[in-house]
Amino acid sequence: MAESEQDRIPGRYGFDEIASSHLEAWPNSYQDRDYVTHFEIPEFTCLCPRSGFPDFATIIVDYVPDASVVELKSLKLYINAYRNRQISHEASANAILDDLVTLLSPRWMRVVGDFTVRGNIKTVITTEYARPEYQGPRPALTRYLPAIG
Amino acid sequence: MAESEQDRIPGRYGFDEIASSHLEAWPNSYQDRDYVTHFEIPEFTCLCPRSGFPDFATIIVDYVPDASVVELKSLKLYINAYRNRQISHEASANAILDDLVTLLSPRWMRVVGDFTVRGNIKTVITTEYARPEYQGPRPALTRYLPAIG
Amino acid sequence: MAESEQDRIPGRYGFDEIASSHLEAWPNSYQDRDYVTHFEIPEFTCLCPRSGFPDFATIIVDYVPDASVVELKSLKLYINAYRNRQISHEASANAILDDLVTLLSPRWMRVVGDFTVRGNIKTVITTEYARPEYQGPRPALTRYLPAIG
Amino acid sequence: MAESEQDRIPGRYGFDEIASSHLEAWPNSYQDRDYVTHFEIPEFTCLCPRSGFPDFATIIVDYVPDASVVELKSLKLYINAYRNRQISHEASANAILDDLVTLLSPRWMRVVGDFTVRGNIKTVITTEYARPEYQGPRPALTRYLPAIG
Amino acid sequence: MAESEQDRIPGRYGFDEIASSHLEAWPNSYQDRDYVTHFEIPEFTCLCPRSGFPDFATIIVDYVPDASVVELKSLKLYINAYRNRQISHEASANAILDDLVTLLSPRWMRVVGDFTVRGNIKTVITTEYARPEYQGPRPALTRYLPAIG
Amino acid sequence: MAESEQDRIPGRYGFDEIASSHLEAWPNSYQDRDYVTHFEIPEFTCLCPRSGFPDFATIIVDYVPDASVVELKSLKLYINAYRNRQISHEASANAILDDLVTLLSPRWMRVVGDFTVRGNIKTVITTEYARPEYQGPRPALTRYLPAIG
Amino acid sequence: MAESEQDRIPGRYGFDEIASSHLEAWPNSYQDRDYVTHFEIPEFTCLCPRSGFPDFATIIVDYVPDASVVELKSLKLYINAYRNRQISHEASANAILDDLVTLLSPRWMRVVGDFTVRGNIKTVITTEYARPEYQGPRPALTRYLPAIG
Amino acid sequence: MAESEQDRIPGRYGFDEIASSHLEAWPNSYQDRDYVTHFEIPEFTCLCPRSGFPDFATIIVDYVPDASVVELKSLKLYINAYRNRQISHEASANAILDDLVTLLSPRWMRVVGDFTVRGNIKTVITTEYARPEYQGPRPALTRYLPAIG
Amino acid sequence: MAESEQDRIPGRYGFDEIASSHLEAWPNSYQDRDYVTHFEIPEFTCLCPRSGFPDFATIIVDYVPDASVVELKSLKLYINAYRNRQISHEASANAILDDLVTLLSPRWMRVVGDFTVRGNIKTVITTEYARPEYQGPRPALTRYLPAIG
Amino acid sequence: MAESEQDRIPGRYGFDEIASSHLEAWPNSYQDRDYVTHFEIPEFTCLCPRSGFPDFATIIVDYVPDASVVELKSLKLYINAYRNRQISHEASANAILDDLVTLLSPRWMRVVGDFTVRGNIKTVITTEYARPEYQGPRPALTRYLPAIG
Ligand SMILES: [Ca+2]
Ligand SMILES: [Ca+2]
Ligand SMILES: [Ca+2]
Ligand SMILES: [Ca+2]
Ligand SMILES: [Ca+2]
Ligand SMILES: [Ca+2]
Ligand SMILES: [Ca+2]
Ligand SMILES: [Ca+2]
Ligand SMILES: [Ca+2]
Ligand SMILES: [Ca+2]
Ligand SMILES: [Ca+2]
Ligand SMILES: [Ca+2]
Ligand SMILES: [Ca+2]
Ligand SMILES: [Ca+2]
Ligand SMILES: [Ca+2]
Ligand SMILES: [Ca+2]
Repeated sequence: MAESEQDRIPGRYGFDEIASSHLEAWPNSYQDRDYVTHFEIPEFTCLCPRSGFPDFATIIVDYVPDASVVELKSLKLYINAYRNRQISHEASANAILDDLVTLLSPRWMRVVGDFTVRGNIKTVITTEYARPEYQGPRPALTRYLPAIG
Repeated sequence: MAESEQDRIPGRYGFDEIASSHLEAWPNSYQDRDYVTHFEIPEFTCLCPRSGFPDFATIIVDYVPDASVVELKSLKLYINAYRNRQISHEASANAILDDLVTLLSPRWMRVVGDFTVRGNIKTVITTEYARPEYQGPRPALTRYLPAIG
Repeated sequence: MAESEQDRIPGRYGFDEIASSHLEAWPNSYQDRDYVTHFEIPEFTCLCPRSGFPDFATIIVDYVPDASVVELKSLKLYINAYRNRQISHEASANAILDDLVTLLSPRWMRVVGDFTVRGNIKTVITTEYARPEYQGPRPALTRYLPAIG
Repeated sequence: MAESEQDRIPGRYGFDEIASSHLEAWPNSYQDRDYVTHFEIPEFTCLCPRSGFPDFATIIVDYVPDASVVELKSLKLYINAYRNRQISHEASANAILDDLVTLLSPRWMRVVGDFTVRGNIKTVITTEYARPEYQGPRPALTRYLPAIG
Repeated sequence: MAESEQDRIPGRYGFDEIASSHLEAWPNSYQDRDYVTHFEIPEFTCLCPRSGFPDFATIIVDYVPDASVVELKSLKLYINAYRNRQISHEASANAILDDLVTLLSPRWMRVVGDFTVRGNIKTVITTEYARPEYQGPRPALTRYLPAIG
Repeated sequence: MAESEQDRIPGRYGFDEIASSHLEAWPNSYQDRDYVTHFEIPEFTCLCPRSGFPDFATIIVDYVPDASVVELKSLKLYINAYRNRQISHEASANAILDDLVTLLSPRWMRVVGDFTVRGNIKTVITTEYARPEYQGPRPALTRYLPAIG
Repeated sequence: MAESEQDRIPGRYGFDEIASSHLEAWPNSYQDRDYVTHFEIPEFTCLCPRSGFPDFATIIVDYVPDASVVELKSLKLYINAYRNRQISHEASANAILDDLVTLLSPRWMRVVGDFTVRGNIKTVITTEYARPEYQGPRPALTRYLPAIG
Repeated sequence: MAESEQDRIPGRYGFDEIASSHLEAWPNSYQDRDYVTHFEIPEFTCLCPRSGFPDFATIIVDYVPDASVVELKSLKLYINAYRNRQISHEASANAILDDLVTLLSPRWMRVVGDFTVRGNIKTVITTEYARPEYQGPRPALTRYLPAIG
Repeated sequence: MAESEQDRIPGRYGFDEIASSHLEAWPNSYQDRDYVTHFEIPEFTCLCPRSGFPDFATIIVDYVPDASVVELKSLKLYINAYRNRQISHEASANAILDDLVTLLSPRWMRVVGDFTVRGNIKTVITTEYARPEYQGPRPALTRYLPAIG
Repeated sequence: MAESEQDRIPGRYGFDEIASSHLEAWPNSYQDRDYVTHFEIPEFTCLCPRSGFPDFATIIVDYVPDASVVELKSLKLYINAYRNRQISHEASANAILDDLVTLLSPRWMRVVGDFTVRGNIKTVITTEYARPEYQGPRPALTRYLPAIG
């Protein structure tokens, strides 16, 4: 039987849900097509492995599912769990790719970590997985430089 | 004989038109060319299959017609009819593609469902159909990441 | 004792929460100051009283609380409840103002309904309440016309 | 009894509706408040009185109703009727103001005609009406000049 | 001998110039190169073949001339002449392509009709001509979807 | 009797029209209202009085006419005539104001000269005239600084 | 004697600096003027008091100093220290105002907390302090609604 | 007799011009009007007094001249001269104001220093001078917060 | 020996420098790489060959140098020299390409002339040169059409 | 043992860190993938080799690491060290590429120097390195020209 959200322990259930969460896969009902799912997750934060100061990023995931798709709420909680981890820019993008590839065995996947400026330098990491035989879409994610005008 | 729009039952005819609508095909007068029709439909809404809460999206359709084009008003009513359906992000984009391909037998078609943020995550589904022998245009629909500027 | 969100009846609890919701007031801990709370709610939809076709708007609320502030989740459910109501642009903005003034007895409040285009015309309704003796902030919400450049 | 829109004479009813249209007033249900209705009508076109060549503009109307509000479809048809009239920039903005003030007797009204470039010059006409005793809102419609940045 | 523009019949010459205009070709002085001319014509308007109501579009033409280029003023008058024609979105883009290809026998040409929203749906038609042996530039005209930022 | 534009001496009539032009006033048909006409003229160019190198600006004029309005084509030719004049940023904005005030005796007028960067510095001159008793509108032309966002 | 940043304990000094930090005041060298300092701090994050889930905001501070200005690094560490606190939107904006007013005794100060969307609603809190006799600048921080165009 | 720019010592004359430069005043030919000159200088850089690391800013000056205007090239060289100075954000904005007021004795002047982010915090200093009796224009330089749209 | 810029004849040296200028080539120190230099020159103006009225454009040059690069100041003066020439849109873009190819013998070059609107039509000319055997970069310069968003 | 940042010599340590800095390489933990790291460094400044006046640029680096990645703080100090060097646009972009290729032996690298306007011309240098056998990603960095719209 269902209970309302109000029954959850005030001030606690977010911690509990994040602590006990694990990425969940659901069946993909459209396996006959190479369709692309694109996620943008603007509220990623972790801690710098060198200084302990907070880092912030938007994480962008594009993938072509095979038998499984990722469950959206479990993905949110998985991202939330980076909040107290000390991890570099390169490692966080590659670790998210590794974890999602392990879970989903997708046909193709790309993860982008678009970090805010540190030391006057902005860093963006782009990392990609494809099955060796993959021939489907790999949609461009272009950075542009505006012309005068 | 025609009657003005004012003759329609006040407060009712929209419901009736949506309920009785079906996608309509019209003949394509320019079958000798692989030209592209692009639709943007910013007022898609449906209900989440898990929670029942409303979801919102812009639906973008690009296609190269063969013998038929879709009638614009019937497309609008078809989109309106999702308002009370419980359907996932992946399913709505793929279902729109299936229904339009069945109706039109186009040479090529792509459907994008660009959904608003849920659980701090934005989702965009892109799904595509092409006849096996199709060699015509497949116009890019790029997402961009702005550079510092 | 709390139960997780997963215990709620699949596909049902959103309907139930919207149906049983009512606007809730919480105490304002900073009554000594005339501070402003600004809400932007981009997912308002209702039905046209004349045709029954859907309308879409962003609702913007600015207010200076007195003894009470509005609880955020109850505000979301209150807005969700317009989905199946037939109501005009003018009436929806003024009704939201009336309901929130009744609930909160604020020092000052302004409601804007920024509707999408209908019949090639975009409509925005702005309506405001102030206690007769109110002298506090009324932050501008300017529409701009870009110059050539 | 209502008939569907499909019963209207194909290719004709738009001409007929524009030709027979007249601005219509509806009662204002919120006369106790000085609320503002803002319309943006981006598809205004008329003919230059000097050359006969077409002119294009966005018409922007802001007003505080008294006993009456303008009916939206009659406003659209009224604007459509300028398509074959030869009228200057200044005269079209002032004529729209005159016609709407005559119809509605509003507390306050402002009409902007934001015309596209002619002879390398962009022209915008802003004209306003207020009852002598009017003390209510006159929302700013600012043009901005972007700073370097 | 030349007369000034002021000698033209006041209020008439625009009608006359549009009525008597025909697309004009001029010689191309740079036939040794496959260079591209791009035109943007934001003031296209015609009438809906179904309703008679006005439609609005930006017409975009890209082409690689062979022996001839189109004369700019004759192109403007040709576009003006659609104002009172009832023609569909698909037909207007394809007819402009047909007329310009007939006039110029270009190496390559693309016409885009970028129409304003009707029935909550925006439509863009893209249609293209190339000589069978053409190998020159076909510059992309990308639509973009902004990422979260 | 009118002759077409084609009768004008090829390659010459622009020079002649600019050389012989003078600002022209037309009667204002709406003298009972303090309405505002806003012009943006993005193609102003003159020569630096110090170096002789070209300068470029957008000229923006806002005014409230009294008995007269400025004729648009004569204003264009008047602006064209600065092309070969050596004049400073401050002097060109103030001279345009002086000439238009002399011609029109307006109730209020403001001229802005928004010049492109020279020596890494962008300069904008804003100068204004008002009759001593003037109480009408003086619409703001705000420069903004974007916040982080 | 100074040591380089490299001497700090790897992976630790950020935690230590945040834990031991306190807001610091420095003397204001320009007390004779009412000048304004504006800070934008886009990397504020705290925890929701109800759920424990993370919240994100840009904090904007404007103030007119009297005898003291706030030291920039101590302000950064003070903001960092909210990362593990459970605090509401209203309370965080008002608490930052309280703490900075206590530290600096400024002539005037305004704090804005511009939070990201939660439950489909964006919230912005604006709270302000002024000495009773303060007559100096209070620079506007306008939200705008873009017009069609 | 004039010599060309090419006669200047290669690689040296910029240093020399900056080292020997001093702010220069020229007579104001339009003293009868309170007109505003606005400068934007996006290439200001200095050194942090605490660390010695470089800082970057756009400097914005608005002023109403009295008998004198500032000569543009001398202003550029004056700004260039900050490149090797160690000076705080507050001091650089106030020092530029002091130097220009001393030089020009203007009726009114405002200086803004809009600095790039340091320590995740963006700082903008706004400081202003006016003669006690000054009643002329003080054009707003608004920061805006974009609404959802 | 060098003289300062102040020695140049006041009001004259710009004319002289433009009149006596010629495009200058400098040696390319990085001939081992196919690197791209991109120039944007927003202040191009010439005269219409038909009417004598002024035309305005941004000229964009991309090229891969071989033995020579163009000297920047000589390029500026070369562009300045078009101010009093009567030349069509097509001819100016192709002539700039011809002159720079003759001067530099580059590996690859593209010139774009992006002209302002004339007769309600905007024109952009793109013309390109490549050595027959060239295989290096040809960076895209995309025009985009914004999607609804 | 670590000392706090406060122990560094006030006003000196930035100079010392820049003077003694050298680019540092760290091991790449994800050598099995061709992932891309993108840096944007908006605060590059150097001195013109011809005049000695300051130049400003944003430097953009994209690379696919092999055994090593660049340490971020050493990259910042390396960029800081250009402040007092006289170096041309072409040389600075190519020198940064040379230095980073020497340090990292990457699989692929591209450096862009996006300089601010000088002599009314904006210059962007793009230079690239790839191992002969490299087949991995080379992400596009497109400049766009906005269409009318
Ligand atoms: Ca790192
Ligand atoms: Ca889903
Ligand atoms: Ca910028
Ligand atoms: Ca209504
Ligand atoms: Ca622009
Ligand atoms: Ca007129
Ligand atoms: Ca159609
Ligand atoms: Ca943003
Ligand atoms: Ca000057
Ligand atoms: Ca709250
Ligand atoms: Ca526009
Ligand atoms: Ca400081
Ligand atoms: Ca031409
Ligand atoms: Ca939007
Ligand atoms: Ca150079
Ligand atoms: Ca637009």
